[in-house]
Amino acid sequence: MIVVMSPQSTAEDLENVKKKIEQEGLQYHLSSGSERTIVGVIGDKKLISHFEDHCFLPGVEKTMRITEKYKLVSREFKGESSVIDVGGVKIGGNNPPVVMAGPCAVESMEQLMEAAKAVAEGGAQFLRGGAFKPRTSPYDFQGMADDGLKMLRQAADAFNLKVVTEVLDQRNVMEVAEYADVLQIGARNMQNFQLLKEVGAAGRPVMLKRGLCATIKEWLNAAEYIMSAGCDDVIFCERGIRTYETYTRNTLDLSAVVAIKELSHLPIIVDPSHGTGRRSMVRPMAMAAVTAGADGLIIEVHPHPEVALCDGDQSLTPADFKRTMEDLKKVAALRAEF
Amino acid sequence: MIVVMSPQSTAEDLENVKKKIEQEGLQYHLSSGSERTIVGVIGDKKLISHFEDHCFLPGVEKTMRITEKYKLVSREFKGESSVIDVGGVKIGGNNPPVVMAGPCAVESMEQLMEAAKAVAEGGAQFLRGGAFKPRTSPYDFQGMADDGLKMLRQAADAFNLKVVTEVLDQRNVMEVAEYADVLQIGARNMQNFQLLKEVGAAGRPVMLKRGLCATIKEWLNAAEYIMSAGCDDVIFCERGIRTYETYTRNTLDLSAVVAIKELSHLPIIVDPSHGTGRRSMVRPMAMAAVTAGADGLIIEVHPHPEVALCDGDQSLTPADFKRTMEDLKKVAALRAEF
Amino acid sequence: MIVVMSPQSTAEDLENVKKKIEQEGLQYHLSSGSERTIVGVIGDKKLISHFEDHCFLPGVEKTMRITEKYKLVSREFKGESSVIDVGGVKIGGNNPPVVMAGPCAVESMEQLMEAAKAVAEGGAQFLRGGAFKPRTSPYDFQGMADDGLKMLRQAADAFNLKVVTEVLDQRNVMEVAEYADVLQIGARNMQNFQLLKEVGAAGRPVMLKRGLCATIKEWLNAAEYIMSAGCDDVIFCERGIRTYETYTRNTLDLSAVVAIKELSHLPIIVDPSHGTGRRSMVRPMAMAAVTAGADGLIIEVHPHPEVALCDGDQSLTPADFKRTMEDLKKVAALRAEF
Amino acid sequence: MIVVMSPQSTAEDLENVKKKIEQEGLQYHLSSGSERTIVGVIGDKKLISHFEDHCFLPGVEKTMRITEKYKLVSREFKGESSVIDVGGVKIGGNNPPVVMAGPCAVESMEQLMEAAKAVAEGGAQFLRGGAFKPRTSPYDFQGMADDGLKMLRQAADAFNLKVVTEVLDQRNVMEVAEYADVLQIGARNMQNFQLLKEVGAAGRPVMLKRGLCATIKEWLNAAEYIMSAGCDDVIFCERGIRTYETYTRNTLDLSAVVAIKELSHLPIIVDPSHGTGRRSMVRPMAMAAVTAGADGLIIEVHPHPEVALCDGDQSLTPADFKRTMEDLKKVAALRAEF
Repeated sequence: MIVVMSPQSTAEDLENVKKKIEQEGLQYHLSSGSERTIVGVIGDKKLISHFEDHCFLPGVEKTMRITEKYKLVSREFKGESSVIDVGGVKIGGNNPPVVMAGPCAVESMEQLMEAAKAVAEGGAQFLRGGAFKPRTSPYDFQGMADDGLKMLRQAADAFNLKVVTEVLDQRNVMEVAEYADVLQIGARNMQNFQLLKEVGAAGRPVMLKRGLCATIKEWLNAAEYIMSAGCDDVIFCERGIRTYETYTRNTLDLSAVVAIKELSHLPIIVDPSHGTGRRSMVRPMAMAAVTAGADGLIIEVHPHPEVALCDGDQSLTPADFKRTMEDLKKVAALRAEF
Repeated sequence: MIVVMSPQSTAEDLENVKKKIEQEGLQYHLSSGSERTIVGVIGDKKLISHFEDHCFLPGVEKTMRITEKYKLVSREFKGESSVIDVGGVKIGGNNPPVVMAGPCAVESMEQLMEAAKAVAEGGAQFLRGGAFKPRTSPYDFQGMADDGLKMLRQAADAFNLKVVTEVLDQRNVMEVAEYADVLQIGARNMQNFQLLKEVGAAGRPVMLKRGLCATIKEWLNAAEYIMSAGCDDVIFCERGIRTYETYTRNTLDLSAVVAIKELSHLPIIVDPSHGTGRRSMVRPMAMAAVTAGADGLIIEVHPHPEVALCDGDQSLTPADFKRTMEDLKKVAALRAEF
Repeated sequence: MIVVMSPQSTAEDLENVKKKIEQEGLQYHLSSGSERTIVGVIGDKKLISHFEDHCFLPGVEKTMRITEKYKLVSREFKGESSVIDVGGVKIGGNNPPVVMAGPCAVESMEQLMEAAKAVAEGGAQFLRGGAFKPRTSPYDFQGMADDGLKMLRQAADAFNLKVVTEVLDQRNVMEVAEYADVLQIGARNMQNFQLLKEVGAAGRPVMLKRGLCATIKEWLNAAEYIMSAGCDDVIFCERGIRTYETYTRNTLDLSAVVAIKELSHLPIIVDPSHGTGRRSMVRPMAMAAVTAGADGLIIEVHPHPEVALCDGDQSLTPADFKRTMEDLKKVAALRAEF
Repeated sequence: MIVVMSPQSTAEDLENVKKKIEQEGLQYHLSSGSERTIVGVIGDKKLISHFEDHCFLPGVEKTMRITEKYKLVSREFKGESSVIDVGGVKIGGNNPPVVMAGPCAVESMEQLMEAAKAVAEGGAQFLRGGAFKPRTSPYDFQGMADDGLKMLRQAADAFNLKVVTEVLDQRNVMEVAEYADVLQIGARNMQNFQLLKEVGAAGRPVMLKRGLCATIKEWLNAAEYIMSAGCDDVIFCERGIRTYETYTRNTLDLSAVVAIKELSHLPIIVDPSHGTGRRSMVRPMAMAAVTAGADGLIIEVHPHPEVALCDGDQSLTPADFKRTMEDLKKVAALRAEF
């Protein structure tokens, strides 16, 4: 359940509510919006039911049951759309779509600088790139690890970009957090619950990719793991689901953008590169995603896709990317009118 | 294979090519574009190979092998996008998106007139509505049959609309063709090959919905059945595919729009009503579909969705539809700039 | 709802019940088991509800609501397993599994005689083979049509086998029924409702293959179309569903065998040839199917798979088939002990 | 590539081969069968190609390229089926099917002792039970953790059973390995590559469940991660895949049993409890799995399913389990005859 504090309530009122919750053997989670403070109450159903019957405390405007298992991520919990601020770059709400771009994997300082330059010139705010790569086979290129992280930071700083990069290993969450502005959880780890908990406690915004065959409800619950571990800044990322169709690498589910907006207050961005697996589809699907309401895009850009160590087929060239960004501006302007 | 006639070739040249093809035991299909005539050659691979080696005839510019099984529908066969003219309404190419709208099922003359009025006022060109309904259970409402057809025609004529409606039964293809401007093949019949052949010979444009779990290649081959039966005017309709996700009724695959545009010269429209099954998703997904390149939309509109005999949950009210059409104009204008 | 007549009820009692049902504006369907007669009542919910309240008639033991839309096919409607008698060959109940075998397509009299010989020697009861073939592309071999039907009958008669063959076209249901003992509805036509209705009225048992992405509930409803058209002898056939997995042609869903047995009184057989698409998998999956409770098998056998016009990769040679049948006897004997 | 040593080769020959591989900048993996030793060579393709041309060393019978990315797990690498010995219990090859049984989650010592008793009396060799539970929601019961591990060991020892239990967290692989005989990797972690590597190095056999939407090839590659980390004893576990069907919790893919046997030398067991999610389906699908060739079963058994903290709907009672085990003996005996 949630306890909605009245706009006129005092700090003392809030303290009393928190104390009462703990006395009942329950836990709480605070969400302080610009309008009012909301207290999420988590724990055993019977205890919650008992608490609800005895919750007539000063400063409480109303209490509400939340029907779904995910609570902190839900629109029921927080009606207003969340805006996530990454060092001044704002994601969600009425802000224009952000763009994260760069190569699939960090391959060398030279490649990365060239990519970062293209990405920045195109107008993106984030540099993406994998230092640790989850690969189907143990014999495929696994990424440049720590060196890759440092290169990412250096290249991003050179062009005034933020860094988003994947964390694969519980043991180096803090190390990645040192270099990255946003921590990415990949599709294969969407239900790696230990990793979700540790990432949620790392003090950085988290971008949570949808699992290859995760339902929207499972995805919301995965985000709940991160939020319940202390992180308020979760960004969903739709990256295509696995279906029977083989023409595209995955089936990009843009209705998930609309669904997440209905069910959650958190922002969602779209990855048309993995979502389609085909360079020619990236631009039109990126435009469609923003039209459907996406708060941003993550796009693979490689200075020389033909020699990329991974995902060359779906990477845009700098020239393709530039054109995509020009069209994006028009679509973003249009969407603002809806 | 295809035989491309030179722009300077004469009618006699073409006659010779046709004669030669028949002499070799093969069949042909003509496609006369504004620029040049293309002759599709169909038949046994060995015979085609023999013919190819002996095809140095006057007026022939070049010959080409087509790698896929579908030929007439392919971009290889015809590079220029086809425009389908339905009594003056043009679908495909650089034309603005057409809109087909109306109730799931014809329920009464009153309902239909009210729907047709809303649809016309919103700016749609087509009235949609089922006279024959394919229902999962034999005990569900199966449609008003012949009476429904007549009502559709009457309501459409009253508001200067075209009619698109589904044909379910081989035995009444011609009857439906009498009342409808475009014949619709539903998702469940996408591989009802007998029906495809009969519809292809009926002298009307055909709208071919994608099967619930049809691959893009199977869909193209289904269109090839219709074209090889004599119909040049096939319109694809993406209506969502079946996946594991249950939040939406189907998963609307907008990348199929891009795929069809790459692989075929034929137009494609999108059905966000069946594609999502949720009223709140229809407008954003419609906008996204057009942004991705769709040549049109088919949308369920019901004057009173709460009492609809089918698909009430996904039908727009006239007011919703009006707003959708206003946004659509903006998106269509923007797309023209890409 | 259903009306269960008491074992002591008279023919007159039954007449009265039927008359009453019609008076209420409802329809009925009779099912006369060895123990008792059951009357299925179909129609508008409100009328049924009214009838139920006034159904205290002589000879009626009890009345029951049936919760699902499918009624005649359900276990609720008929608790005892149905046994379908095809000219003396019994399918379902406690009978040993039947085997239907033969080539994918009828190619020539010679091929068919060779196949029929192998099939009969192996111990199968049915010859299978397609005279009309539903093919993805219009340019693929479409079957030998009428000639194929006659050959099937002739080859089957020569070896004392029954014939099961697919009907694709509403217009020749009666023609196929003239030559075949069991009419097959293919996966692509599972929801071709017109065809289901006509096949249901043809006076022959019907084998209904599961659609490529049909749910079990949709499959039961498709069978309901056939039964409600007058046919009591429907045999389900699980033939694999479409999933993301590409190693096998389809994913053979043996849990569907158990599900159908729970939900319906009708028999179910399994097609491990289409279900796997791989010759090496046919034998083990056939054995597993019978262990899970299947009432029979349908297996592709070709005298020379390497030159088959279709499905060569999944066809057994006569020698493979013989071995499979030997193992089958052991599995069938074991199952009888469960 | 692999290097097959001749049966007459000496230890010195082997040492020379290993030295040569390292000199070439490659890595090796040894597999010593009862017949001969095979050396897997892993590394950069060009280096392997060079090595292959210079591999004429004493004691080498032949060298072979392995076409797939997975090598150590493949039948090409090792033709003979692997038998995994867990403290005397043998899994794979011609051994009778093993059975792992017990509750979904460890709930209390009392529950576990009761379950272990039932499991042992039924004839199972392994006690299963989760001490750490991966749950969709962070607010669901997450398992008894360390206490659960200790209880499992204690209950298993009391009835002379082995322990199989899931490890979720990289940080406590060694702790779980202390108490468990076999380490289980759950479906959600099938591509948690860090965990695979750590588990592969833990010195215990590993049971690798198939991911919810993993292809067979991805699953083989996941096993390759474990084997390349040093573990030769990997057991596959088919537990159902996610499809559009909702009647069953998952779709149990028994053709995967046949596929794994064809592609790999490693054993595979089947989980009919998660595979179907329905108690009534567990017994028939278990029998079908063994008939198809499964080397064992893992079955949820709970003394009181109606009060189970998770998966009660799919858990067998001790009485159901006993009957299942009796039938299993017959099926196992039959299979030995195939």
